[in-house]
Amino acid sequence: MDAFRPDRSLARPAAHPEYFEGRVFMQALVDAERSPDLEILAVFFEDGARTTPHTHATDQVLYVLSGTCVVADDSGRRQAGPGDYVRLPAGGWHWHGAAPGQSMCHVSIRRPGATDWTVERRDW
Amino acid sequence: MDAFRPDRSLARPAAHPEYFEGRVFMQALVDAERSPDLEILAVFFEDGARTTPHTHATDQVLYVLSGTCVVADDSGRRQAGPGDYVRLPAGGWHWHGAAPGQSMCHVSIRRPGATDWTVERRDW
Repeated sequence: MDAFRPDRSLARPAAHPEYFEGRVFMQALVDAERSPDLEILAVFFEDGARTTPHTHATDQVLYVLSGTCVVADDSGRRQAGPGDYVRLPAGGWHWHGAAPGQSMCHVSIRRPGATDWTVERRDW
Repeated sequence: MDAFRPDRSLARPAAHPEYFEGRVFMQALVDAERSPDLEILAVFFEDGARTTPHTHATDQVLYVLSGTCVVADDSGRRQAGPGDYVRLPAGGWHWHGAAPGQSMCHVSIRRPGATDWTVERRDW
């Protein structure tokens, strides 16, 4: 077994900043080197940062660790706080990030699969 | 999207109490009806309860929400506390539960797959 925990000091700037608006830092807790079954990332959004709209080939579950998380998809926009889980079905466009002016950290949990960042711009 | 959070009042007694020692309650956060990709369960162990040794066909990640979690596998026994993640590789025997006399809640995160509870008794 191995053990780990989200730690802002271990996070690195997002490898593709063009997929985000604002400053975003990522820490891979479980990646392809560690598991063929799960991808678990801690994502730190600073000062209202958020992702651009995108879709995943597999279901994604977000777990909010700190701050207020804003999530938008075809059903609208909602907020989630520390301890909340949000499930986003495969194939559905969505974006997520911190509430304006705030910082937020969530853990992204997925079965590994492709992400499409070329979805037509959609918002609420 | 849908949202949810671990809640002891929504947990039900384990469907197979023979796989546990002590009182264990489970709440399915994401199950087969909600996702083909992920199984996410909140598991509440009371008064030192623990699983019996078992293996999974897919990697499992435990996330400790409250209490002290004890995890054992071929590498030995270790403790994890709130905020810690522990990864258990597919195919490796392990057991997990609360420290003696305590209660503990962890979230189990897996890609769906079989569990084998017939492993030869092993402990540390």
